[in-house]
Amino acid sequence: MAELHLLSPRGFRASGVYAGIKIKQTPDVGMLVSDLPCAAAAVFTTNKVVAAPVKVGREHIRTGKLHGIVVNSGNANACTGRKGEKDAREMCFLAGVAIGCEAEQILPSSTGIIGHPLPMNKIERGIAHAGHSLGRDEEHALRFADAILTTDTKRKMAAARFRVGRETVTIAGVCKGSGMIGPRMALPQATLLAYLTTDAAVNPSLLRKMLSAAVDDSFNSVTIDDHTSTNDTAAILASGASGAKIDSPRASRAFADALAEVCRSLAYQIAADGEGATKVVKVTVKGAATDAAAKAMARAIANSPLVKTAMHGNDPNWGRIVSAAGYAGVPFDPDRCTLTLQGAAVFRNGQPLAFDATALGALLKAAEVRVELNCRMGRGQATCWTCDLSKDYITINAEYHT
Amino acid sequence: MAELHLLSPRGFRASGVYAGIKIKQTPDVGMLVSDLPCAAAAVFTTNKVVAAPVKVGREHIRTGKLHGIVVNSGNANACTGRKGEKDAREMCFLAGVAIGCEAEQILPSSTGIIGHPLPMNKIERGIAHAGHSLGRDEEHALRFADAILTTDTKRKMAAARFRVGRETVTIAGVCKGSGMIGPRMALPQATLLAYLTTDAAVNPSLLRKMLSAAVDDSFNSVTIDDHTSTNDTAAILASGASGAKIDSPRASRAFADALAEVCRSLAYQIAADGEGATKVVKVTVKGAATDAAAKAMARAIANSPLVKTAMHGNDPNWGRIVSAAGYAGVPFDPDRCTLTLQGAAVFRNGQPLAFDATALGALLKAAEVRVELNCRMGRGQATCWTCDLSKDYITINAEYHT
Repeated sequence: MAELHLLSPRGFRASGVYAGIKIKQTPDVGMLVSDLPCAAAAVFTTNKVVAAPVKVGREHIRTGKLHGIVVNSGNANACTGRKGEKDAREMCFLAGVAIGCEAEQILPSSTGIIGHPLPMNKIERGIAHAGHSLGRDEEHALRFADAILTTDTKRKMAAARFRVGRETVTIAGVCKGSGMIGPRMALPQATLLAYLTTDAAVNPSLLRKMLSAAVDDSFNSVTIDDHTSTNDTAAILASGASGAKIDSPRASRAFADALAEVCRSLAYQIAADGEGATKVVKVTVKGAATDAAAKAMARAIANSPLVKTAMHGNDPNWGRIVSAAGYAGVPFDPDRCTLTLQGAAVFRNGQPLAFDATALGALLKAAEVRVELNCRMGRGQATCWTCDLSKDYITINAEYHT
Repeated sequence: MAELHLLSPRGFRASGVYAGIKIKQTPDVGMLVSDLPCAAAAVFTTNKVVAAPVKVGREHIRTGKLHGIVVNSGNANACTGRKGEKDAREMCFLAGVAIGCEAEQILPSSTGIIGHPLPMNKIERGIAHAGHSLGRDEEHALRFADAILTTDTKRKMAAARFRVGRETVTIAGVCKGSGMIGPRMALPQATLLAYLTTDAAVNPSLLRKMLSAAVDDSFNSVTIDDHTSTNDTAAILASGASGAKIDSPRASRAFADALAEVCRSLAYQIAADGEGATKVVKVTVKGAATDAAAKAMARAIANSPLVKTAMHGNDPNWGRIVSAAGYAGVPFDPDRCTLTLQGAAVFRNGQPLAFDATALGALLKAAEVRVELNCRMGRGQATCWTCDLSKDYITINAEYHT
């Protein structure tokens, strides 16, 4: 599937151009456009402080139809008051002019520093340039993928393909993450940005429902610093250009599975490229009273700076993990649980187990560390992805100046 | 008041000895003993995973009477199963033998690594030695204060004095903190350890009530890494030796005020000595819907790694602060609020304010940084203390091996 990209689903064009908003000379204005107005869904941050593009995006997605997405990186257009909202609307208007549609058919996004007005002269030139630069090939997909990045060190893309009857459906996506990652996106409200394309024909309400479910088990299960951004947005556009209709339970399930796969891959890439990350930590909690309880414990473990620093030090300091589960605020009995690190049991039924700390420490020097807690209380289960906490996180964030 | 110490309140003796539990050769077993069995109260961690000494301590405090406290540092006796509980009871028994009382009249505490059995041969010799070494002078108070420290770089002590009629009442305390600090202590259930002495005569139920209130506005309002420990404990012993009875509303208020002052001073010392801390960050939220809402916002701000790294970098990146308040899960309207850093307004009514970033950055290079958010929604108010997040936090915690 290495050859699939954001524009593999038929019916879309994209571009990414450098407009001088970011200091680093990489694309900072991007457009993703459907050939025709198409079914769309989006989820946004649940932060009480919402960036101007999120306010405007919530309005524009109401119809379940979009013609395109316009995004800039380098400036979040958050906490920018009325001017910010006007600027977000202006971005939509300019993108609409570029492709010949109403401003209301465009979803705007911004990511970067909070509290600074958008440089509208650069934005205006950037959007005009992006409108002229639209294309359908992989290179254009990559430029759009690059245009949404901030402190990310890597471009993030995923895709999946399945058949509905005789038709082949493709779902593809790009995202950015890195810092200020603790998304809690909800309908109809997700500085995680994720944009997905598909050539399936899906009605907007089903698309909303499937996006929401996929986001919960993917983006909403990744945490870098648990700081829920003002700008988080995940959106999907469904062109219908494949001819495949998602209108049977079977087709819906196939679509949901493929969408979940794409979102999970993108979420994993965010954890792996967390600010300062040297490894991914996959925290699974099983046997909890409920799925929600499992998620609360997995998130408490994944968010603990003590757990994250221990993982950075390749230190099987499992007491930090068990104690984090204990303060998640959900039912938990340490006398019944088992904790494994990389498959090796270290704590069972309230008792520490003997283990070779040197050997286990060596196992923790992996690109992915698996932490698994079995509570033996019920059937609740959840997985969260995070990364270790290193000195580079401090460097990046103490020096990312306003 | 610099001359006041833990043993200034009359009726107490203390000791601190090195028993070989900590690698660093500083006291690791301490005893604090009242001349006669006396009124006592304690609050403990709300973590679902509670260390053995906390389990035993909860039992022993039920009567509202204690004769002493025995504590070791270097090993938390947490996640140690039945042996751990037996060991905690044995500590009480040994301390009881040393001073001639029942095991049930002793409150045990442990702090240090989780998941390792206590070295009972060292503990036994240590307690016997501590029992022989009890004394009433400042030197003994300091030894006890040292015996409870782990990664702390400084000894933490505070005291206050007030008059009830003709009598002078003294309240004094010692504590330890540094890491795994996100206490949420509650009655009748704190690795924050705090021990307080007073020579006032207070009945146990009033003592409980006043300790709980003082802890909420002090220790429970300090967060280093928001990792609620399995061992957090705050306890107070009231000898009554001053002859002053706390039995009038006026005396109660004077006692509560002095106790609050001592606890706040101790809590502040914990924030200032947080692992890797270079400064204290004092976060005050005013005008929230309720005090609880204010505390939720203050805590969200104080816990954000992005806020803490910005403070470390002397960076007035106020968007991180406003956005943290936005995800606290309580009512908040950025369009009505004002944020000040060191008294300088940076954000008002949803709009960024122009400020001199270099000058404000220079103001942030202070030993204490004041962050104040006024929500203009109600009368709710709260203050949380934290520290900045530096590379030293990573060094300390990635290398504090099991």
